[in-house]
Amino acid sequence: MNSEQLGQQIELAHGSGGKSTYRLIRSAILPALKNPILESLSDAAVVDYGAGRIALTTDSFVVHPLMFSGGSIGKLAINGTVNDLAVSGAQPRAILLSLIVEAGLPMDVFLREIQAIAEASRIATVPVIGGDTKVVEHGKGDGLYITTTGLGIVDPKVNLSPQRIKPGDQVIVSGPIGDHGIAILLARGEIELEANLRSDSRPLWPLIKAMISVHPSAVKWMRDPTRGGVATTLNELSREIKMGVVLFEEMIPLREEVRGACEILGLDPLHIACEGQFVAIVEKDLLLEILKELRKVPGGEEATHIGEIREQPAGVVLAVSSYGGSRRVDMLIGDPLPRIC
Amino acid sequence: MNSEQLGQQIELAHGSGGKSTYRLIRSAILPALKNPILESLSDAAVVDYGAGRIALTTDSFVVHPLMFSGGSIGKLAINGTVNDLAVSGAQPRAILLSLIVEAGLPMDVFLREIQAIAEASRIATVPVIGGDTKVVEHGKGDGLYITTTGLGIVDPKVNLSPQRIKPGDQVIVSGPIGDHGIAILLARGEIELEANLRSDSRPLWPLIKAMISVHPSAVKWMRDPTRGGVATTLNELSREIKMGVVLFEEMIPLREEVRGACEILGLDPLHIACEGQFVAIVEKDLLLEILKELRKVPGGEEATHIGEIREQPAGVVLAVSSYGGSRRVDMLIGDPLPRIC
Repeated sequence: MNSEQLGQQIELAHGSGGKSTYRLIRSAILPALKNPILESLSDAAVVDYGAGRIALTTDSFVVHPLMFSGGSIGKLAINGTVNDLAVSGAQPRAILLSLIVEAGLPMDVFLREIQAIAEASRIATVPVIGGDTKVVEHGKGDGLYITTTGLGIVDPKVNLSPQRIKPGDQVIVSGPIGDHGIAILLARGEIELEANLRSDSRPLWPLIKAMISVHPSAVKWMRDPTRGGVATTLNELSREIKMGVVLFEEMIPLREEVRGACEILGLDPLHIACEGQFVAIVEKDLLLEILKELRKVPGGEEATHIGEIREQPAGVVLAVSSYGGSRRVDMLIGDPLPRIC
Repeated sequence: MNSEQLGQQIELAHGSGGKSTYRLIRSAILPALKNPILESLSDAAVVDYGAGRIALTTDSFVVHPLMFSGGSIGKLAINGTVNDLAVSGAQPRAILLSLIVEAGLPMDVFLREIQAIAEASRIATVPVIGGDTKVVEHGKGDGLYITTTGLGIVDPKVNLSPQRIKPGDQVIVSGPIGDHGIAILLARGEIELEANLRSDSRPLWPLIKAMISVHPSAVKWMRDPTRGGVATTLNELSREIKMGVVLFEEMIPLREEVRGACEILGLDPLHIACEGQFVAIVEKDLLLEILKELRKVPGGEEATHIGEIREQPAGVVLAVSSYGGSRRVDMLIGDPLPRIC
């Protein structure tokens, strides 16, 4: 099905629930995402599961622009949601997809994003088992907003809980931070910078699975630092556990393009969103073992130790440098980078 | 927490993922929706379930205006999603909530909708266990869009499948149709009509539970006829089962206000959205028993027999009247009523 048969652009009628919706779903969405549960087109997708713990997460994606180096809203919407499951220690199993489309969106763009969703879903090996499509008038949206919900099965071996964190535990990150946020700024043309930077959007489960397969109980906490970056994520943690999180400034992996863009814009890389990295708190004794496991997995080569948990300063994230300086790293304040995801 | 402490309106920073988001969630959202799973504020909500079948559904709500007689977008977003579970034979158990807010939305309106969500969630006895909040620039949304995802446990006694439908099975509806769609038109001021009509938005599980508790296997198929109305829902069914659905025109329950508005606007009430009714296909032998059970439940008093399944005309919905006339009822074509839900 190409855009000629469907019309050149999305019209309000595509959201009516009637004939145009029926045609759009049958000819453009189902063939791209096909699987038996989705094809039943029932009001709810029904899945069989044995006893166990289920993880559920939902996120709306409003990234602007829709396409950027290394990805697009459709890819982001799948990877963002499967990663929220992965950092919860859950194997992603199913995705639900809800689209809010602005009337006038070129049909080619709509179909391209359906393909991006289909491809990301294949790469993450997580089927889209249900969804919804709404259309709003031109001027009441911004092309396409996507809400994805993920269901995962919690790996019974993991035991993630901030209550298990103790002084001496170590902080690791799966790779260089800030690529996604800066890639979006570049796509908006907001900075003049010759940079060959791509969003890091990717599914994290393969990395996390490798780590928890070998040392499940040594991993105490994980998050993917998206909006607000590593700084915000770790500030939430430090407040919750009432301990200090100390980061070793020079050890934080950072591409030159991200460092350069942050210097130009006066931003702290620790506030810049990642879409394909995780931060974890792990037991000190197994730190090196865990890094070794991560680095064996394709895409995990740059996993790095970046800090540790200390009793003091309680509730605070501190970045220390090797020459002895230290600075308090706060949560992101205001929103210098709106609609990053 | 009132709007003075939060600021008078939603700002882009409320969607940053940083400090403003943290404050909005902690002070406005968590207190209204509180439950232990939500309060963990983890990336994914984790729930324990025994073996069984899980139903999942997602829907975006873009209704305009945000408030109308009998409800608002928040109430609709909860009831719409729990009803998609209910008509799948699943007891609603948990809701995930994702908000796309337009910068500039008055804080009072935001807080009012959080309260509406909280109240609908209490009435439906389904907790909101997770969510997300994004903010888009003024002019890139329309106040508030809500995506809700529901998880339910399929009642092991039910056996819903269009493949079980046979000629002679009967069509029932839980009450008068079209109230929601016409209530929205009235709220928009698009028709001059003195009408005391309220949206029918309500949770359907109590009605459906009563019906399937007594005669689980006699119920073969259920849907809630929202966008596109009863006509679209039954057209989808007739095409799938390749049988005819015959409706007895005079038996279809309809309030005078809905009939009048449809006459003025040249609309077919069968195309008008309901948000608190279901259509079901049931075994002929148990038709009266099932209606008796439904009518015992508060809100089920107007449940009615409205048609039957016949071999012919295959794939078609036909409305017949007592004086012998008949007309083909098609799916909704175009979208005379955009953004009804």
